[in-house]
Amino acid sequence: MAATYELLYWPGAPGRGEHIRLALEEAGASYSDTARLGMQACGDIVWAQMGDDNLGDATNPPPYAPQILRHGDLLISQTSNILSYLGPRLGLVPTGPGKENDIYKINGLVLTALDGLSNEVHDCHHPIAKELYYEDQKTEAIRRSKEFIKTRLPKHLGYFEKVLKGEASGDGPWLYGGTLTYADLVLFQCLDGTQYAFPKVISAAKESGKYNRLFQHYEAVKSRPRISAYLASERRQGYTLGIYRYYEELDVLPE
Amino acid sequence: MAATYELLYWPGAPGRGEHIRLALEEAGASYSDTARLGMQACGDIVWAQMGDDNLGDATNPPPYAPQILRHGDLLISQTSNILSYLGPRLGLVPTGPGKENDIYKINGLVLTALDGLSNEVHDCHHPIAKELYYEDQKTEAIRRSKEFIKTRLPKHLGYFEKVLKGEASGDGPWLYGGTLTYADLVLFQCLDGTQYAFPKVISAAKESGKYNRLFQHYEAVKSRPRISAYLASERRQGYTLGIYRYYEELDVLPE
Repeated sequence: MAATYELLYWPGAPGRGEHIRLALEEAGASYSDTARLGMQACGDIVWAQMGDDNLGDATNPPPYAPQILRHGDLLISQTSNILSYLGPRLGLVPTGPGKENDIYKINGLVLTALDGLSNEVHDCHHPIAKELYYEDQKTEAIRRSKEFIKTRLPKHLGYFEKVLKGEASGDGPWLYGGTLTYADLVLFQCLDGTQYAFPKVISAAKESGKYNRLFQHYEAVKSRPRISAYLASERRQGYTLGIYRYYEELDVLPE
Repeated sequence: MAATYELLYWPGAPGRGEHIRLALEEAGASYSDTARLGMQACGDIVWAQMGDDNLGDATNPPPYAPQILRHGDLLISQTSNILSYLGPRLGLVPTGPGKENDIYKINGLVLTALDGLSNEVHDCHHPIAKELYYEDQKTEAIRRSKEFIKTRLPKHLGYFEKVLKGEASGDGPWLYGGTLTYADLVLFQCLDGTQYAFPKVISAAKESGKYNRLFQHYEAVKSRPRISAYLASERRQGYTLGIYRYYEELDVLPE
């Protein structure tokens, strides 16, 4: 039987594709993943999508960059966009009368998590240009990380603590409506990656007691049976030189 | 009669709120805009939304930051999210049989435009931290802008030229499906702002002849009757010290 969903993404680190994998894994969906093909075969597929001569097809514009989701004739990219397509199909968004607008609240949380705890964390090690090596922007990375840790990170962690405290989160550990949604999976992955990048800083945040709901939320996602099985499987790749990177000189507690 | 849509955003520059305004203006929708209240009254409303003690309400998580759209009981934030809610309601997304998935293609284009020609352009003048003054990160801003102009900007402009060349864009000047969608408005605003920030660089890009479709697209949006009337009205704010800023030392052609 052909796989229902096809994920096109680089191998070698969880990366942006991980948000899509976690949704598919939590739902027990059938999917293929080019990352499992290894760099050569995967690269051929992904580079062809990004090539100058790929103009898309009659109904799909060419994608800008992976990750890309193919589902039948549909080919779409951008993390939050793919998730807004998959969410209702995978049962990761509340449905039914009066819940038609829930997806906009969930998508808002997703975009905020990706901005603050994925894009901003990436830019801590690459503040000047994605195209340059870390070593060539290390001075700037140290400065940016210091500011991020002092000002931005507490703001982001505090925001999600506030969301979890709010009435709209409902009973239980989840972000919205008292039920697990794909926003929970995104926040988990963002915090997991940020913890990889800044272990000392996140450990101090945890010990501060200021973000107890947030760290309970993290554990609640991590212990979902399918997520837990996935994280222990070989399908879960280790962090290396992707979105989230560990450099000892960046992981410094504020004075 | 009460306004149908309520936009909560800072006054003083078009900013991220402009994408929402352009969609509402193109559709001829009735809306209010806190930016028109001036800094004091607007600030009171917006800061209250962002305050530590605002936990949202029974169905809305607290927003992270403006812009925010209120529509009846709904309160949502994040540019692409608000637009995906408004798009179908304002007739800025194709509808009908076989077009159910068009919004994911449009939203993908929106996210790519916002990433490349809004967030990245903002970070050219603030590569270290939003919380610091430009003058305190000017050295890094010069370096980042140089790399952006050399590598990233041609990539982004070339991508949208490719989208406009592709079959899925249909006949005519638009990005998708041969009809104006909110993705067209977003790309227009992104290019307009980038042109404000880097006039010399964008002028050279125009003269290069490499992006003819893109610049024709820009003119096509600009000359839409309602957009044109809006841009000439006092509702359209001038660029100042917002997302898009002009600093002569950053607007430098590659050697």
